[in-house]
Amino acid sequence: MTTELPSPEFDDRLAAVRDRIAEAGADAGVWFGATAIEYLSGFAHIQTERPVALAVTGDTVALVVPRLEVERAEAVDHVDCVDHYFDYPGGDPVETVAELLADLGVESVAADADGAPGVMGYQGPPLSEHVDVETQAWVDRMRWAKSDAEVDLIRESARWANLGHRYLADHTEVGAHPATVSQRASLEASRAMLDTLGDRYVERVRGDGPVHAGYISAEETALPHGHTPNQRLREGDVLVTGATANVDGYFSELERTMFVGEPTDEQVHYFELMLEAQTLAIEALGPGVELSYVDSEVREFFEEQGVADLAQHHVGHNIGLGAHEPPYIDAGWGDHCESEATNYGAADAVMEPGHVYTIEPGIYTEDAGYRHSDTIAVTEDGVEWLTYFPRDLESNTIR
Amino acid sequence: MTTELPSPEFDDRLAAVRDRIAEAGADAGVWFGATAIEYLSGFAHIQTERPVALAVTGDTVALVVPRLEVERAEAVDHVDCVDHYFDYPGGDPVETVAELLADLGVESVAADADGAPGVMGYQGPPLSEHVDVETQAWVDRMRWAKSDAEVDLIRESARWANLGHRYLADHTEVGAHPATVSQRASLEASRAMLDTLGDRYVERVRGDGPVHAGYISAEETALPHGHTPNQRLREGDVLVTGATANVDGYFSELERTMFVGEPTDEQVHYFELMLEAQTLAIEALGPGVELSYVDSEVREFFEEQGVADLAQHHVGHNIGLGAHEPPYIDAGWGDHCESEATNYGAADAVMEPGHVYTIEPGIYTEDAGYRHSDTIAVTEDGVEWLTYFPRDLESNTIR
Repeated sequence: MTTELPSPEFDDRLAAVRDRIAEAGADAGVWFGATAIEYLSGFAHIQTERPVALAVTGDTVALVVPRLEVERAEAVDHVDCVDHYFDYPGGDPVETVAELLADLGVESVAADADGAPGVMGYQGPPLSEHVDVETQAWVDRMRWAKSDAEVDLIRESARWANLGHRYLADHTEVGAHPATVSQRASLEASRAMLDTLGDRYVERVRGDGPVHAGYISAEETALPHGHTPNQRLREGDVLVTGATANVDGYFSELERTMFVGEPTDEQVHYFELMLEAQTLAIEALGPGVELSYVDSEVREFFEEQGVADLAQHHVGHNIGLGAHEPPYIDAGWGDHCESEATNYGAADAVMEPGHVYTIEPGIYTEDAGYRHSDTIAVTEDGVEWLTYFPRDLESNTIR
Repeated sequence: MTTELPSPEFDDRLAAVRDRIAEAGADAGVWFGATAIEYLSGFAHIQTERPVALAVTGDTVALVVPRLEVERAEAVDHVDCVDHYFDYPGGDPVETVAELLADLGVESVAADADGAPGVMGYQGPPLSEHVDVETQAWVDRMRWAKSDAEVDLIRESARWANLGHRYLADHTEVGAHPATVSQRASLEASRAMLDTLGDRYVERVRGDGPVHAGYISAEETALPHGHTPNQRLREGDVLVTGATANVDGYFSELERTMFVGEPTDEQVHYFELMLEAQTLAIEALGPGVELSYVDSEVREFFEEQGVADLAQHHVGHNIGLGAHEPPYIDAGWGDHCESEATNYGAADAVMEPGHVYTIEPGIYTEDAGYRHSDTIAVTEDGVEWLTYFPRDLESNTIR
């Protein structure tokens, strides 16, 4: 049971970016993005208007943080030194980064951006006022393939997502409030996870539990990003669920289409088409497979079945430290997409061992949506299902 | 009781940006940021790797969305037309925006950014490949002063935050798990809010309830952004709480320092200093007051009391559609801030009626943190407390 990323993972990641820094002929790599900073150093923080920067040179890993992150930053194993500004906007984060780089003798950097991102009203100068800056997206690309240890964390997340989803199903009944069922399932699964893992649980949430399970219901399911309505469950409601758990910053994704009471023939029809589409997409996955092939297989099936107009999105995305991350399973389709797809970031992408995909083709009528999502890891010789809640109609009908 | 932003608010906002577009000599305004898009049009969405853009001309309000947002976008009153690309990366969002602008006869725009933000791995071309782009931050600045209707929503949020906080206090006892207390308080307050508001509740959350109440506890409170530990409450634990509710997208902030059992003399000492600092900060607020003055008043008090080294952040921020938003109450202090503060975005800022501040000076020892946060609106002739949970020691001691 792995619930924490092993320390040597960070050595590997830092070694990889040091190779790239050398290849790029830069004195240092610099990152302003919270996820990239966590990925390389193990320092996790909430990205706000107060910028954080990571600088990596041949022999030093340094952070610039606001005062309120100093103690946490200094406690991180892989960080050699921590500089800080007091707060923003009174302090000057980019100037502090520039001073740190000067102390380290750095004159040129390869950075994920030329300055900190404009989060929560942050505005600041470019870093290139102080040093030569070339931009790079190394970490985004490195994150495509997960290590075995990363897949272990996502697998652990899927266990607790499954429990949360079990509680969702157990608490669902006519007259129950969808928000209350969602919050109760999250509470109970979080409590079980915390009590099961004990000291092995790595704190990652704030005023909340690590498991989130919940659903949208009734007409709201017709919108892929619908809301939970303030309306108690009725016989005949369709539910589209979602469950995940935060395991040392990593996530899985489990979604099911469920029915409150006996589904109509039409509902069964769309459910079964969705299920078949998901099955054929998962069967199409594997090392060496082009991502666009999987999306095209589903599209072809939907066209054969006359439901292509009821699709509203591509087949899936990767998942890990981010809830959505590249590469995306997207062949570039849809009647209204007249321009040539530029496929920034995923042109001709091919599946590799360690990619972890959500597979979630959906069908949306005027009244309801039909979508399962499973989290599937690509392995050396096939795939591994990380989520495992039953997918069939009977198991997802609440009587 | 107002739980939804009145429709004429959007007319006012659109009129204001149309004036600025005319002043700038541009053919249109364009926004890629989710909060600005919601602020101007009423179209709320989750910002992901799929960009959304709003274009405003003299006579048209148009959206570009991914396919999965079409129905929701078309249902928005103030939006005249909706174009879409199918999905990303297969579709080309910026090209779709360019085609829309061409259809509208637009050749020059004032935009919040030259292209969509790099969220969840999105990478795309600049909009300036297609039209002349000047960047502007009009909406960020417009959001500083809330209308009466906006303050009404934040006031309503504070009511439900108060209930969530009451449940937090009620469920706190030695042996209780902080995550479970947090989740239970959120569940019960959400349920009460949904049942009280009924049809007047505007759906805004997904697989969750509208109220979040929770806390961090014990040593984790020593970190301003600490986590909830997997450790049951013990006699002597300090809690730093937080409660809010989502009311049509608007938030309030209520935080209290609480004690499980009788506090020590040291704990009482820091609690009382924190409380006095918060009181003097709130008393310093008002229309025409310089923000930096309020931060300086607290700093001076902390220095007099010999606890300036235990402060880790400035006094507060604005709140509304964003959980943190400018302007920030920050005078630029701290021993380590040697560079001259540039105060991007808030230089010489002055409080005005409609600003809504969190006031939350904090003291952090090695063992524990002490911080209340209240949400205070600046009015024509003073201030209004929007949050109102008792602040005194006795009310925040759980026996």
